[in-house]
Amino acid sequence: MSEYTGYNGNSLDFLKKNKILVGDSVKILGDITYSGIVMPRYEHSDDKHIVLKLKSGYNIGLEINKIKKIEKNPSIEKNIEKNQKIEKSSDLPNILLLSTGGTIASKIDYRTGAVTPVLTAEELNSSVPELGKIANIDTKVLFSEYSENIMPEHWLKIAETVKEYSKSDYSGIIIAHGTDTMHYTSSYLSFSLAGFPIPIVLVGSQRSSDRASSDAALNLIGAVKFLTESKTNGVYIGMHQDENDETIACHIGTRVRKNHTSKRGAFQTVGNVPAFLIVNNKIHKNIEKKFFTTDEFEPKIKINEKVALVKYHPGYNPDLLKNIIDSGYKAIIFEGTGLGHIGENMYPIVKMANEKEIFMGMTSQCIDGRVRMTVYESGRDLLNLGIIPLENMIPEIAVVKAMWVTGNTEKYDEIKENMLKQIASEFTT
Amino acid sequence: MSEYTGYNGNSLDFLKKNKILVGDSVKILGDITYSGIVMPRYEHSDDKHIVLKLKSGYNIGLEINKIKKIEKNPSIEKNIEKNQKIEKSSDLPNILLLSTGGTIASKIDYRTGAVTPVLTAEELNSSVPELGKIANIDTKVLFSEYSENIMPEHWLKIAETVKEYSKSDYSGIIIAHGTDTMHYTSSYLSFSLAGFPIPIVLVGSQRSSDRASSDAALNLIGAVKFLTESKTNGVYIGMHQDENDETIACHIGTRVRKNHTSKRGAFQTVGNVPAFLIVNNKIHKNIEKKFFTTDEFEPKIKINEKVALVKYHPGYNPDLLKNIIDSGYKAIIFEGTGLGHIGENMYPIVKMANEKEIFMGMTSQCIDGRVRMTVYESGRDLLNLGIIPLENMIPEIAVVKAMWVTGNTEKYDEIKENMLKQIASEFTT
Repeated sequence: MSEYTGYNGNSLDFLKKNKILVGDSVKILGDITYSGIVMPRYEHSDDKHIVLKLKSGYNIGLEINKIKKIEKNPSIEKNIEKNQKIEKSSDLPNILLLSTGGTIASKIDYRTGAVTPVLTAEELNSSVPELGKIANIDTKVLFSEYSENIMPEHWLKIAETVKEYSKSDYSGIIIAHGTDTMHYTSSYLSFSLAGFPIPIVLVGSQRSSDRASSDAALNLIGAVKFLTESKTNGVYIGMHQDENDETIACHIGTRVRKNHTSKRGAFQTVGNVPAFLIVNNKIHKNIEKKFFTTDEFEPKIKINEKVALVKYHPGYNPDLLKNIIDSGYKAIIFEGTGLGHIGENMYPIVKMANEKEIFMGMTSQCIDGRVRMTVYESGRDLLNLGIIPLENMIPEIAVVKAMWVTGNTEKYDEIKENMLKQIASEFTT
Repeated sequence: MSEYTGYNGNSLDFLKKNKILVGDSVKILGDITYSGIVMPRYEHSDDKHIVLKLKSGYNIGLEINKIKKIEKNPSIEKNIEKNQKIEKSSDLPNILLLSTGGTIASKIDYRTGAVTPVLTAEELNSSVPELGKIANIDTKVLFSEYSENIMPEHWLKIAETVKEYSKSDYSGIIIAHGTDTMHYTSSYLSFSLAGFPIPIVLVGSQRSSDRASSDAALNLIGAVKFLTESKTNGVYIGMHQDENDETIACHIGTRVRKNHTSKRGAFQTVGNVPAFLIVNNKIHKNIEKKFFTTDEFEPKIKINEKVALVKYHPGYNPDLLKNIIDSGYKAIIFEGTGLGHIGENMYPIVKMANEKEIFMGMTSQCIDGRVRMTVYESGRDLLNLGIIPLENMIPEIAVVKAMWVTGNTEKYDEIKENMLKQIASEFTT
């Protein structure tokens, strides 16, 4: 690893000329004067900016053309690496932060530029100093995976850990998680840990912490505010509401999707406003309903992975569905069209699946709105063939629920009953 | 079929008591006086309303409790069934309306209550009288299918028909189509008929014409306005913009999705405003770019159906992908997570597909935003394994494009080149 990681062309020349290395604490004079630590950048960055981590924990990008002077600030040099022990305050609430990987949980080694996925309490507090003022944070690293590599076995590990803290003195639990599949994980935890008494919030970041626009710090601060002040329980996803830094949204973990590949406000509650908003550090509650149907915490964490998601489209070949049936799947979630339809060329194979007592649930690829299979002849045909309309459950969440339901019972009638039973706010009226 | 089709309980009693049958032309006195034709209703309707088709062509629901008097109006009784021949006006533009089925193209027989899918010019004009004032409309029934039963073979039939009218005196072509898969059909036509000189607009309705809130008439009027006044070409979907009746949106046929199961404003342009809005019958143009890259009309209408859509999720079993490969598929469109990722457990099978020169394209299940596979290690791994990032093409549209591209060439390099080449506004910057 170079001491100039990610810098190239003009910005590399600029650093070399001024004898500044990545990780150096510097003072920069321009229209405004900034003090902070020079951060590494990604390979594909432009060569016109350097990125500075300010004392507040936020990163900014500074155009080198506009820098009048840059000088090392020896007095606070690399202070972030000292990992000084943080004293707990008995006046503050306690929060547990579990780290699973993803951009949010990564820490950059300021000297080498390597991204290391391990986050200790001290490192966290020194990178986001506001956190220590609002809560005592204990951290635990569960594993370190990009979220596209999070598998049901990782869900199990998270649930196994979380369930041990149902009677702790924590006000809530943060799960730092990659954003790609965060809503799948939040759904699984919502079902498997139904009734869990303290709030859980999954937090990620859309921009890595070496980018000027990183959302990591503010998402974490918002999450801690939410956990310590919301007086609720349930499983949520806490992320930027939109492109501005004023509002963090906490979405119900079974009603949320990642709806944009890169925007900071990528996560949205489907068909509704987020359950909670943290606007300029004040909490706004948008829902009155209880998150869990049950108040008893009886974890059921088993999973069966033999669940298939079938997204229907014109030209979908029913033989693919037959392959799924022949492979021993226990449940099929259709992403049908419109109100919950698939083409009539699917009927013979659907009939076969029904005869084998494979659970078939219908959701809509429209994502928003409710399936209604009684309106058109096609829907009524599919009902007669044994497909169960899953109301307005989001397709991705229905897949997770089916894995969880079929993991906990093998009986068709119980599977059907549990798929339709409200457990963790997965249906809305 | 009963003469009271769809009416039950109180509303049925009300009609019987007043000796009114479905199809009768009546005058209703209440707070406001209405004249119109009593419409049949669906089986699951409530028993508190009757539905009246007004002379304007719009339907309204009237609460029977608020009706002071209902009387037959013999002078205009069932005039809608007379199918009087409409005279063409040489001052008006000519429009061709092709009917493929769906709610929009259905007509209710006012006597029997049966929904008949065949729409003649006369029937259309008598049910939406405004149309005759703005254009001469010729109609042709291609087939009559719910859109969930529209298959690529139907696309072929539509394209074969449309391509014959490239040198006609029509100002544009309306395709009446069920809404469920309208965006798949619009995409196919966009690719196969690239360069077609006159505008094509697919029109559906979210509420059937026996419902008080039917959007059929206004969508048709908006479409005719668009075709006769927009001075453009391309393939669009014309539907209500939202729940109010003031605005019809015309969406680019390759950038549109059905995003709600039942709302009238279900169709939305992904990540952008609609290309055209018709607000109170005035056209607003929101885009300047040409719809087609080419100005030459050289139809390429072949399709290969051996294209699979794989929506990745935690727990997706790579064996399902292996089944697809073993079944001789020519192309696989991944709906990956986030910026375009799938789990590393997929790598061995992806490698196998690449060795067999099966085209693999990456889109995102986020739907909005661009895939970017150079940001994270996972993305770079997948690039090395031969997966091609499809920029911001919508997954459903990418599947259609892959069917079309592989239908017109079998060579891997040409497939790749054509999948990435802008044809019909499927990529935006």
